[in-house]
Amino acid sequence: MPSAFATNMRFKFSILAIFLEVLIIVLFGIFVRYEDNQPSKKDKLSLYPFFQDVHVMIFVGFGFLMTFLKKYGFSSVGINMLIAALGLQWGTLMQGFWHMKKQTINIGIESMINADFSTATVLISFGAVLGKTSPVQMLIMTILEITIFSCNEHLVVNVLRATDTGASMTIHAFGAYFGLAAARVLYRPGLKEGHKNEESVYHSDMFAMIGTLFLWLFWPSFNSAIAHPDLQQRAIINTYFSMAACTLTAFALSSLVEHRGKLDMVHIQNATLAGGVAVGSCADMSIYPFGAMLIGSIAGVISVIGFKFLTPFFSSKLKIHDTCGVHNLHGLPGLLGGLASIIAAVAHVKLRETDSPSAPMQAAALGCTIGIALVGGAFAGLVLNLPFLGQAPDENCYDDSVYWEVPAEERQPAGQFSDSGDHRTVNINV
Amino acid sequence: MPSAFATNMRFKFSILAIFLEVLIIVLFGIFVRYEDNQPSKKDKLSLYPFFQDVHVMIFVGFGFLMTFLKKYGFSSVGINMLIAALGLQWGTLMQGFWHMKKQTINIGIESMINADFSTATVLISFGAVLGKTSPVQMLIMTILEITIFSCNEHLVVNVLRATDTGASMTIHAFGAYFGLAAARVLYRPGLKEGHKNEESVYHSDMFAMIGTLFLWLFWPSFNSAIAHPDLQQRAIINTYFSMAACTLTAFALSSLVEHRGKLDMVHIQNATLAGGVAVGSCADMSIYPFGAMLIGSIAGVISVIGFKFLTPFFSSKLKIHDTCGVHNLHGLPGLLGGLASIIAAVAHVKLRETDSPSAPMQAAALGCTIGIALVGGAFAGLVLNLPFLGQAPDENCYDDSVYWEVPAEERQPAGQFSDSGDHRTVNINV
Amino acid sequence: MPSAFATNMRFKFSILAIFLEVLIIVLFGIFVRYEDNQPSKKDKLSLYPFFQDVHVMIFVGFGFLMTFLKKYGFSSVGINMLIAALGLQWGTLMQGFWHMKKQTINIGIESMINADFSTATVLISFGAVLGKTSPVQMLIMTILEITIFSCNEHLVVNVLRATDTGASMTIHAFGAYFGLAAARVLYRPGLKEGHKNEESVYHSDMFAMIGTLFLWLFWPSFNSAIAHPDLQQRAIINTYFSMAACTLTAFALSSLVEHRGKLDMVHIQNATLAGGVAVGSCADMSIYPFGAMLIGSIAGVISVIGFKFLTPFFSSKLKIHDTCGVHNLHGLPGLLGGLASIIAAVAHVKLRETDSPSAPMQAAALGCTIGIALVGGAFAGLVLNLPFLGQAPDENCYDDSVYWEVPAEERQPAGQFSDSGDHRTVNINV
Repeated sequence: MPSAFATNMRFKFSILAIFLEVLIIVLFGIFVRYEDNQPSKKDKLSLYPFFQDVHVMIFVGFGFLMTFLKKYGFSSVGINMLIAALGLQWGTLMQGFWHMKKQTINIGIESMINADFSTATVLISFGAVLGKTSPVQMLIMTILEITIFSCNEHLVVNVLRATDTGASMTIHAFGAYFGLAAARVLYRPGLKEGHKNEESVYHSDMFAMIGTLFLWLFWPSFNSAIAHPDLQQRAIINTYFSMAACTLTAFALSSLVEHRGKLDMVHIQNATLAGGVAVGSCADMSIYPFGAMLIGSIAGVISVIGFKFLTPFFSSKLKIHDTCGVHNLHGLPGLLGGLASIIAAVAHVKLRETDSPSAPMQAAALGCTIGIALVGGAFAGLVLNLPFLGQAPDENCYDDSVYWEVPAEERQPAGQFSDSGDHRTVNINV
Repeated sequence: MPSAFATNMRFKFSILAIFLEVLIIVLFGIFVRYEDNQPSKKDKLSLYPFFQDVHVMIFVGFGFLMTFLKKYGFSSVGINMLIAALGLQWGTLMQGFWHMKKQTINIGIESMINADFSTATVLISFGAVLGKTSPVQMLIMTILEITIFSCNEHLVVNVLRATDTGASMTIHAFGAYFGLAAARVLYRPGLKEGHKNEESVYHSDMFAMIGTLFLWLFWPSFNSAIAHPDLQQRAIINTYFSMAACTLTAFALSSLVEHRGKLDMVHIQNATLAGGVAVGSCADMSIYPFGAMLIGSIAGVISVIGFKFLTPFFSSKLKIHDTCGVHNLHGLPGLLGGLASIIAAVAHVKLRETDSPSAPMQAAALGCTIGIALVGGAFAGLVLNLPFLGQAPDENCYDDSVYWEVPAEERQPAGQFSDSGDHRTVNINV
Repeated sequence: MPSAFATNMRFKFSILAIFLEVLIIVLFGIFVRYEDNQPSKKDKLSLYPFFQDVHVMIFVGFGFLMTFLKKYGFSSVGINMLIAALGLQWGTLMQGFWHMKKQTINIGIESMINADFSTATVLISFGAVLGKTSPVQMLIMTILEITIFSCNEHLVVNVLRATDTGASMTIHAFGAYFGLAAARVLYRPGLKEGHKNEESVYHSDMFAMIGTLFLWLFWPSFNSAIAHPDLQQRAIINTYFSMAACTLTAFALSSLVEHRGKLDMVHIQNATLAGGVAVGSCADMSIYPFGAMLIGSIAGVISVIGFKFLTPFFSSKLKIHDTCGVHNLHGLPGLLGGLASIIAAVAHVKLRETDSPSAPMQAAALGCTIGIALVGGAFAGLVLNLPFLGQAPDENCYDDSVYWEVPAEERQPAGQFSDSGDHRTVNINV
């Protein structure tokens, strides 16, 4: 194996991971304390069920959603876990640095929700480069992306004072365009014609549905977790109906774009979730349930169309190969969410009696987010392209066995398990 | 393929789904508003964890429970999702029409719980006809069944003023007998001798256990979600112990009815849940924990006996082929729940100090529910029998590939995946 | 089959299970009542989300974690469910007997949490003997272990007044050493050289990750569920960061101990959880977030080292064959948790302003727990060794088909499913 593809991670991965953990513990020792348990803060435990729903989305939802590839399940769910575990620690620090009091970061359930949120951006970007990067690269990308994300989030929320409760812009669009820019820089011409491992098998599609459903079910919690308490129920209702409407249109379009009218698991696994992304920015606004359903319906339609027509175009013409199609699930619906928030602002839709969002600030937030994501993602891609970070050669992409001990049976054609005992199955290869 | 089995759904499915979504959005625009966020209503967010548990049961629980068939996993979990997403929107309208104030349907967490509940009836009925119907048929059945369900629910709860907190009667018995009546009308003589796809494989049984466990775990939430706040803890306790006792007897009976004493996954996946169904009507009554355990124990016994002896009898003699055995999981235990509530009423078991249920009203509720379900289900079956709704010919039943893009490997014997790359496995067929 | 291995469970299993259920119902009828719904108790419903998280850990977490064996998934998730359903009823009684008021056991959400906790000990011990015991044996072990556990718990909490909120000692170390002692007594020399079924396949490792993730996610609830309300947030925070830090070091060590630097699913499935075990005893103490992360980091390291070096040593030299490696996930990290609580006591770490734990009492608690677990486990092993309890002969260990109806395809080499229809795959055995 040429040194450009030195995939033995024994020391470089282990040492980097331990170094990062030691660094983080030192920084936590210096800066991080429990938030005061003042009476006014006590009812923050009421956010704990919301936190747990978001937590399940990050680890089970994102993790299993990406297990659709036939030989890449260990990496999908395992490296997802690694990224999230590192990311939530780093996110606590990065988000905390913007809100220090007396040089101290005070943490509680709300900061844990925000830390989990920050990892979502990396997990979205991970979807764009899935199967083509090493665990070492993903550790580095986690650090870089969360650092840049927290700056953009600060800009959008505290400087521009834009509203983005469900984070259509700051998480979904940001994560998608960051990942696409990185994928552009990391483009592998050798994979242009596709790859024999870049497909699902029956049971891997079933595992992916576990991810889809837990994301789908808990999205109302995602969009309402950090909303003002008075507006949480509204954010829950809007998201619930947006998801339901989106599911109907995603199923309808999936059948419509296939000439025999068959449903495609890729669409069902992904496009049914676009309604949650798209309603995010407006989730706590008084857009009425039918408004939420309208946004969700449109999101379902554009997401399926994106998978069918845009992803192949991106791959063949723009040299952006987007493994999971994050552009269709997070990118386009994130843009739609940003646009919806601008329209709502123009229409003077209220948050509470006294508030209404400002259209120019919403537009500025959307523009900043996309710009920073593209530049940041391209920069991350350049860093990850350093030759000693352990990425696999083209022929070993989308294959767990490069970085994982895989049960012996898997050396045979995927999914076909022979007994490793005293008799063996002969597979005659032609 | 003869036109009677025109399974290409491209336009009929897509147009019907989009038409229904547009219709629903228009009706929501006219009738549906957020519930007033008055102080008295604010603590309704305390129901949100209950809602999320029920939500998981509907989408993950019911969805994965039906994935036991070896080639029908995509449909089970996918069409389950489609039905539930449509049903919760339609249910919001149908249940709302009975409770309008100033021609407005006010929605909040509680109405979302009720909307999710209404979808459960269709998902139960779906189990009876699983593998033998098209997605187009299921969209129509969803609309019909939820409309009829909400009338029956209004009759039982508001007219008869019967108590049915955990909905043994109005959801479980209703859904089961509706589905059985529909299955009778849709009976296919060609499947009399069984079907080669109507069986599980090892991993499909494992996927089904995901459904079983999430149903089992969250059933206390199902049975207490809409109970009076003072009675919620009691409903939780009763359900928890009923489920535990039922599990013991279901395991015991499963081993007892098999001549070598082996456990049967069908029983473990289903009969362990019968305790939750059966304790539903009495869940918030003061039946004592041992009373709940008695109900659960009996439910476990009759459910296994139903699977072993009644299902084959229904199929061969009554021409009712019940794919998932919903009669044993929802029908018989639902009847048991209704009977238990009558007995509790006769015994003057209290709800609160001042309330006790009325035996005649409980009996009337049970009778009405079964009658309306049977007539409604037969009517739905007649509608679904219309020849242009895309049902598959007998030989293609229980097979995802009629309505879904299925990974190429699955064209080979189920579960045996060959590599689609540059070498192929030869399967010698004798 | 020789009578020493009479694995037909038809009557012995069924009668034992029904007898136990009847006994439990009678005892519940005599002793168990609903806890008074006094106003002061009403807010106990605030613990319900914590209960549900723990409930998911017990049934889905433990159940699926053990499904990694290629032919033992039905037993892992099914017998786990059986043990837990029996255990929570028996645990309610055993724990209740120590806290009776007027000869009555009063139950509510908190007692349900404790009942679920008590089952965890048996599920941990089940991991040590997995694949080598019959369902009849497991029913007996459940009764024995929970009885002994509740005595030890009473000793530690009420007599010694030690602090062990997250139960590092009383559940994790207890369950592990109980199981190891039982495994020692039940040692089978015939399995010394390994067994062809004692390995995973690709998809069984994926199922196990479902268990891992739900345990990982809800561990903060496990460690805080019975903490004082003022200290719950702190217990949540400490556990959250301990788990995250542990995940980083477990990944790092997994790669480091393998000469090609590959990650091992056994470590990822198990060692990533050690941080939750180890921080348990100190979870509600003011150890600062960085202290929690330090404990978690060390736990991840020793757990991987245990899997790599100790487990083979135990098996070859000490005649203790620990199927799931519970010593590395629950035993060593449980010891670490006990030690950490002693150190914290020496350092006068506070619980609340006025409390701090006592080092001698923490040490006594740890010693008692290990001692009672070892003696109790050895006693249980002797009882289970009785020849008529249905254990399988060596060659049929780790195989569901001894006690379960298994789909016909599984009679062939594991995971290779041939069609049972009208054509068959020929597997040429050499």
